[in-house]
Amino acid sequence: MTTQLDTQALISLLKEALPASEGPIALHEPLFKGNEWEYVKKCLDTGWVSSVGAYVNQFEEMLSKYTGVNHAIAVVNGTAALHMCLHLVGVARNDEVIIPSLTFVATANAISYCGAIPLFCDSEERTLGIDAEKLNDFLLENAEIRGNACFNRNTGRRIAAIMPMHTFGHPVNIDALLLVSDKWNLPLVEDAAESLGSFYKGRHTGGFGKISGLSFNGNKIITTGGGGAILTNDPELARKAKHLTTTARVPHQWSFMHDEIGYNYRLPNINAALGCAQMESLPEYVAKKRALAQRYKTVLAGFKGVCFFREPADTQSNYWLNTILLDAPDITQRDDLLEKLNEAGLMTRPAWTLLHKLPIFSDCPRMDLSVAESLERRILNIPSSVRLG
Amino acid sequence: MTTQLDTQALISLLKEALPASEGPIALHEPLFKGNEWEYVKKCLDTGWVSSVGAYVNQFEEMLSKYTGVNHAIAVVNGTAALHMCLHLVGVARNDEVIIPSLTFVATANAISYCGAIPLFCDSEERTLGIDAEKLNDFLLENAEIRGNACFNRNTGRRIAAIMPMHTFGHPVNIDALLLVSDKWNLPLVEDAAESLGSFYKGRHTGGFGKISGLSFNGNKIITTGGGGAILTNDPELARKAKHLTTTARVPHQWSFMHDEIGYNYRLPNINAALGCAQMESLPEYVAKKRALAQRYKTVLAGFKGVCFFREPADTQSNYWLNTILLDAPDITQRDDLLEKLNEAGLMTRPAWTLLHKLPIFSDCPRMDLSVAESLERRILNIPSSVRLG
Repeated sequence: MTTQLDTQALISLLKEALPASEGPIALHEPLFKGNEWEYVKKCLDTGWVSSVGAYVNQFEEMLSKYTGVNHAIAVVNGTAALHMCLHLVGVARNDEVIIPSLTFVATANAISYCGAIPLFCDSEERTLGIDAEKLNDFLLENAEIRGNACFNRNTGRRIAAIMPMHTFGHPVNIDALLLVSDKWNLPLVEDAAESLGSFYKGRHTGGFGKISGLSFNGNKIITTGGGGAILTNDPELARKAKHLTTTARVPHQWSFMHDEIGYNYRLPNINAALGCAQMESLPEYVAKKRALAQRYKTVLAGFKGVCFFREPADTQSNYWLNTILLDAPDITQRDDLLEKLNEAGLMTRPAWTLLHKLPIFSDCPRMDLSVAESLERRILNIPSSVRLG
Repeated sequence: MTTQLDTQALISLLKEALPASEGPIALHEPLFKGNEWEYVKKCLDTGWVSSVGAYVNQFEEMLSKYTGVNHAIAVVNGTAALHMCLHLVGVARNDEVIIPSLTFVATANAISYCGAIPLFCDSEERTLGIDAEKLNDFLLENAEIRGNACFNRNTGRRIAAIMPMHTFGHPVNIDALLLVSDKWNLPLVEDAAESLGSFYKGRHTGGFGKISGLSFNGNKIITTGGGGAILTNDPELARKAKHLTTTARVPHQWSFMHDEIGYNYRLPNINAALGCAQMESLPEYVAKKRALAQRYKTVLAGFKGVCFFREPADTQSNYWLNTILLDAPDITQRDDLLEKLNEAGLMTRPAWTLLHKLPIFSDCPRMDLSVAESLERRILNIPSSVRLG
């Protein structure tokens, strides 16, 4: 299986694409160069650092305006956003939710928090996200509609949602997934944790499904320290999301009445202040990240043994994490490259361990996952910080 | 039931205890006067705002040192801390957990997140917290030990823990609760969300149970914007708490292996930076809050119709929220006072709606709650900010 690969040549080419650097180059680090300090200082000066404050509303408005999705609800992190999205589309105990096996563990954890079970789906090489056609074939063989709901015939459980993830920022094949979603009565929830700044056919990711989740963790294109947001075009879901994430308290000057089991998932104002400043820089950050990707693409053109992963057709990606793919699915070669690139000061990581291989999820239902298995052995993420662009 | 109460005289006395003020006086607002700016700026300058950074460790060490509890694990808020505490002592689906009905909704929500059910317990007038003797009587009549576990004979469910709350910062009767905990094999989890800076018999609250939760929400004695912490003297519980709250990832340079369903509950470094500065001021803040309480006590001495609630014997309270108690449990008089005090610019609130009265918890098991019912009609919280002390 092993193909020939000149590691030293690869390292040289990657360094050619990157600005000169004394020390090691991080995989992804944040950049604060705008109004971050001014806004955070205003928070501290006024004392409004916590659950109430103007920056939360402003941040939500900026997210809505940038993404073109009508409603944005800021929350404490991306995991909390996904948990609420699933809860809000009705995912309940013992339901199944279709997700890729090739994703970060939070995608599956959010399902567990609802008492539900992941149903692992294969990925496609073109987008690194859910293979919609293969999913449809799986459902034709293994699922049925009863009443208005879709059931997994093998497990007897209801399948309650599909939650694709836009891998490393690259939009999944949304049109094809919307067809599957419609056909099987499965609400589409987008895990857009990695794809702020990524567009599919000219529209921002996160606005296609019923509801979606963003992340502003420290390794994302913009950061609020920790933070996330829920996006939806449905005003009623938006109202419920705000209510549920703020302890479900019924508004009153002093009375404490809570009409649902709520969550303390609101984003503190001080983190939102950081978010407002970062949003001002987002268009520039996307441009810088795309410029870096372009340089990687150029230097790696024609290199033997690996290829640089490029945004799928019809999409404009934020290239959150730049990705090289080994020609051959060879875990030994992959791990050798990981060692050598990290030793050379280029911080490099593999894809996540496929979720169906984690003991905690190994009993969950799944389809054939051969493409994901191959991708796991071939993917390496290379330095991608905004400042490198 | 109504006793005579001269509202205007009460307002005048309260104003006598408070610094002169132009506008309305908040119930509780944060105070930043130390190194808050410096530490937050350092975070921004270094880029370490998120899940990794030196302030998280430093904040944990400061909490451990101040409280005298061996291990502190910083988390995203107090609700998350309580959720993890319960999970870590083994609270599972369909278990019951004993909590006071007189508490904030987060105490009960944390139980719901485990799939468990609150068992509502009465409070005592002396501490405003769980009445340990009444609880023991209830258990004698309604519970039994089978194997090593305690069961509710009425519901058939296992009772998995007792979680008292230190109401408005005043320590509960811990010695009596430890006896109940021992006798009924019920791990004691302290909801210490309100009691940072409060001591029982010279030892800090949160160090008596197996594990406990703190809150640093914006209305607490110190704040991190949003934040909380888990305290425990048990090194194994501490290790598990850190692991579970940081996605349960097994340490490795690049591999993503997660060995449990984990949570994204870590406190961002930027919020921890704020916490470090606030901790430096904590002893002074406690002194200021105790000074304000002393002034309230003095001006209200001998006033007819209300009394100022004083820390229980054997305790030193942070007086998080100062409390006056109507002599008579009269909701009309209470609401009238709430109106008048708020109108007079003294922000005042009642106790929380008793949790067993919320429709979401009305089907949960409970004991006689007559003292809590009485307290609900008599409690008013009055302005308590550090800067007033």
